[in-house]
Amino acid sequence: MDFLSYFFMDFVGQLQSPTLAFLLGGMIIAALGSKLEIPDAIYKFIIFMLLIKVGLSGGIAIRNGNLVEMLLPALFAVVMGILIVFIGRYTLAKLPNVKTVDAIATAGLFGAVSGSTMAAALTVLAEQDIFYEPWAAALYPFMDIPALVTAIVVASIYTSSKKRDAAGDELSKEEYLSKQEYLSKQSVAAGEYGSQPQYPTSRQEYRSQQRITASGYPSKQRERVKIWPIVKESLEGSALSALLLGLALGILTRPESVYESFYDPLFRGLLSILMLIMGMEAWSRVAELRKVAQWYVVYALVAPLLHGLIAFGFGMIAHYATGFSLGGVVILSVIAASSSDISGPPTLRAGIPSANPSAYIGASTAIGTPIAIGVGIPLYIAIAHALMGG
Amino acid sequence: MDFLSYFFMDFVGQLQSPTLAFLLGGMIIAALGSKLEIPDAIYKFIIFMLLIKVGLSGGIAIRNGNLVEMLLPALFAVVMGILIVFIGRYTLAKLPNVKTVDAIATAGLFGAVSGSTMAAALTVLAEQDIFYEPWAAALYPFMDIPALVTAIVVASIYTSSKKRDAAGDELSKEEYLSKQEYLSKQSVAAGEYGSQPQYPTSRQEYRSQQRITASGYPSKQRERVKIWPIVKESLEGSALSALLLGLALGILTRPESVYESFYDPLFRGLLSILMLIMGMEAWSRVAELRKVAQWYVVYALVAPLLHGLIAFGFGMIAHYATGFSLGGVVILSVIAASSSDISGPPTLRAGIPSANPSAYIGASTAIGTPIAIGVGIPLYIAIAHALMGG
Amino acid sequence: MDFLSYFFMDFVGQLQSPTLAFLLGGMIIAALGSKLEIPDAIYKFIIFMLLIKVGLSGGIAIRNGNLVEMLLPALFAVVMGILIVFIGRYTLAKLPNVKTVDAIATAGLFGAVSGSTMAAALTVLAEQDIFYEPWAAALYPFMDIPALVTAIVVASIYTSSKKRDAAGDELSKEEYLSKQEYLSKQSVAAGEYGSQPQYPTSRQEYRSQQRITASGYPSKQRERVKIWPIVKESLEGSALSALLLGLALGILTRPESVYESFYDPLFRGLLSILMLIMGMEAWSRVAELRKVAQWYVVYALVAPLLHGLIAFGFGMIAHYATGFSLGGVVILSVIAASSSDISGPPTLRAGIPSANPSAYIGASTAIGTPIAIGVGIPLYIAIAHALMGG
Repeated sequence: MDFLSYFFMDFVGQLQSPTLAFLLGGMIIAALGSKLEIPDAIYKFIIFMLLIKVGLSGGIAIRNGNLVEMLLPALFAVVMGILIVFIGRYTLAKLPNVKTVDAIATAGLFGAVSGSTMAAALTVLAEQDIFYEPWAAALYPFMDIPALVTAIVVASIYTSSKKRDAAGDELSKEEYLSKQEYLSKQSVAAGEYGSQPQYPTSRQEYRSQQRITASGYPSKQRERVKIWPIVKESLEGSALSALLLGLALGILTRPESVYESFYDPLFRGLLSILMLIMGMEAWSRVAELRKVAQWYVVYALVAPLLHGLIAFGFGMIAHYATGFSLGGVVILSVIAASSSDISGPPTLRAGIPSANPSAYIGASTAIGTPIAIGVGIPLYIAIAHALMGG
Repeated sequence: MDFLSYFFMDFVGQLQSPTLAFLLGGMIIAALGSKLEIPDAIYKFIIFMLLIKVGLSGGIAIRNGNLVEMLLPALFAVVMGILIVFIGRYTLAKLPNVKTVDAIATAGLFGAVSGSTMAAALTVLAEQDIFYEPWAAALYPFMDIPALVTAIVVASIYTSSKKRDAAGDELSKEEYLSKQEYLSKQSVAAGEYGSQPQYPTSRQEYRSQQRITASGYPSKQRERVKIWPIVKESLEGSALSALLLGLALGILTRPESVYESFYDPLFRGLLSILMLIMGMEAWSRVAELRKVAQWYVVYALVAPLLHGLIAFGFGMIAHYATGFSLGGVVILSVIAASSSDISGPPTLRAGIPSANPSAYIGASTAIGTPIAIGVGIPLYIAIAHALMGG
Repeated sequence: MDFLSYFFMDFVGQLQSPTLAFLLGGMIIAALGSKLEIPDAIYKFIIFMLLIKVGLSGGIAIRNGNLVEMLLPALFAVVMGILIVFIGRYTLAKLPNVKTVDAIATAGLFGAVSGSTMAAALTVLAEQDIFYEPWAAALYPFMDIPALVTAIVVASIYTSSKKRDAAGDELSKEEYLSKQEYLSKQSVAAGEYGSQPQYPTSRQEYRSQQRITASGYPSKQRERVKIWPIVKESLEGSALSALLLGLALGILTRPESVYESFYDPLFRGLLSILMLIMGMEAWSRVAELRKVAQWYVVYALVAPLLHGLIAFGFGMIAHYATGFSLGGVVILSVIAASSSDISGPPTLRAGIPSANPSAYIGASTAIGTPIAIGVGIPLYIAIAHALMGG
């Protein structure tokens, strides 16, 4: 009884922390119709500042630390990234009115990592004086890249298997050409998403595309999925670029003076603004969810917490095996609970062009991220608190 | 004699404060033809930072303070907001070559509040170690909203009364249609102003529009002015949104850590940049004043100081009645002296579409704001100093 | 021997300083294909922040200091600005496949000053606790403006002398008109450069233009080059505007509070981001160098170091004559080594319209600036260190 009441008090108390309060505030003013606008240039700059700061602190820690102890958590991060995609493949994708490729793409996005969510977790941990290994933030790419690669590979295998089912079907020249046109539009629009999505709008149209992809020349390109381009695209994306640059600078150079006088002091404040933007963004994306099956809402509510709890279990194994701190376990859980908001969508858009962006972006931004930050972070910290006390 | 010389020295000394110096510097480099450019994204971000900071500090103060003492100053703020519109209605609007709706809109803008001007006053007070109640900044909406609502209502009543005068006039179908087109353009352009204003350019054209508005279907919408949409639009505007969000977060959550490490330390510096932008902007708007009657220049020179002095009188009543600090009296005066630069123009544009934006924006930005900051702030502080000494 | 090894160790150690590390990091991630993007608004804002900070600190120093000691270094700065253009005129311009006007424009850009490079030098000096006169940064315009003016005048004299050679040539009306059109396009595009350069693409076309310029009405305007407009345009550019505004505010007002709480603390951090941007930019400009003669690469590699060393010599004269500090000598050298990246190109574009921007911008941004920062700064500091020790 004592345990539960302590747990609940702790959970509620955390919602007053600036990080979570700004997220909630953003959702509320957006719901009230506020026209508050943070320019996009500021948004991009804040993301850069947060991720390079996280990278720098991780790099400095790695330079001064023992890298061997990072091995087991990093392995678990890779396992989680792959596992999340398969969980989505065998739950969400099996539900009625859910298209399989859409479900795989959504699971890929939920397996990928959000730098903002991770930054929020680091800040809340610091606010509560909970120790964590500074290199824990460097687990990010170990989960992010495997999740995206797995999703794209699984989607491709699914598409190929469809091919054999449809092997006898004929494809008119007209259909083939319109598909070619469709594909070329896709690649042009790969960098942007959301405005005028070019995905198939009816189940029938979608099926006919599958047939096209599964026959003649185009399917040959599909049969062998090249993994390196996906990895490379992830690494080159702005989010991972900033994080890895920070890591490299932290490991190889002496950025302490600029880190301590600039990147570190501005971190919390910039994060509070980012939380505000994400709260407003989450609200504005809710409408997109109406376009897809309601099961996406259920998945987006349940998956972050479930993924986080599984990762918490893996983290505890590392805790007992190699002394991975409870703060580190919380970070691993939050990374697993988070879904990618910056680099993931364009990668998936290019890698699984037949999936509907409204499905995965709506589910992630409107529900997944607020749940991961507003429920996941307090929950895992409360569990860690309870375990420390016990 | 001693009093006057002290007063004068004090006034001149304040012009060297960074806040006022950057305003003056901006005007001078713009006059010298400098191509210095602060990107618009930075300008919007600075406004956001300043207003959320002002809101946060107000909210934290209200949470820890005695809200009852705020009642009288808040009441006086409402009274001032309404009074300023009526002063404009019975002075500026009566002058030759001044259109009545233009004058009412101008008075509404001068009654509305500029967050930047208020931020400048807070900073100069802090620079001079003059105490003020931290909740004083929360008086902003109590003057801003009543002024805008009053201006739109008064303009509408004026337009309706014109209707009766023109009741017998006929309206050709052609004229009616062109007016409809005109109105629809207005609503589209409501969010932006200044570039290609769609207001009537000749007195004759203007009169014919009045006639149109005053007859047939369109006038029915005009007859009853709905107040709630005006209030709602003010509250939803980016300036008041940021201020009220900060207030709510300050009252309901614990943002002290992020306030003290981020919003507060950056306040002065960002304000200095904003002053620079406003100085350059003021100079660039001077040209617009040439398009309207010269009486706007006279009004823009006199009104801020007059409004501020009236508010100073009200503030002194609160000072003797409830112990409202002299610093707080200065803030009330500066709020009254200021004219809205961000949220006011679009609201007026939508609420009084027949008014000429060059008149009110030119008068406010080019003259009203520099006068309120560069003359008003030092003047009211010098009076407060003199009263403290006496 | 001891001297050389000390010198070398010192040089290598400096590459780990945050300022140089971020420059190198930017080049490397750009080479690896990173899509990291710092919004342009942030880039412009950082430039503004750095230059107004440099101006403020210089202005405060001048207000409190002895201006007479600035005379000799300022004179040497003017001499260097002019000298650099003539060095380019009689080396680069004489090389095969190098067009004379292109060479003069390039030398003008290398004579002009980069505020970012200077800011980097100030930071590295501060990091290493080397004293320099705070007014040393105010030497900037004393070299920048003479270099640009000299380049434009020399180019004009060259063009005029060509006229006499070609005096007998005839010019068809058609050719004349197309030239007029060409010139008007030039002036419109003067503010921007790089995207679709309107310069002559073949040697023949270029010659025909020279002929046109050298005959009839257009050449009359050319004969007398007006110097004041060039000076005015330099002073009005955003870089010098910010620097001079800071200087004026520092001298005439009391900006210490805002300088110490805002501009100074943010300086190093913002500079590190700027170095990152410049590193990425340098890499992306490398491709432009392929379009011009390879001699530009040689010039861009050698010239910054040579100019810096000559300026170091002048600086040492001031050191022995008037006690100019060794830190100040380093700053004079770095100013001479730097090439303008913000205000120079548009000024040259307007002043020497027949020059090829790919030549001068590519040489400066892709090679000159990285060499000046990454090799020049450590080199001059190492020499100063060695002289201090000796």
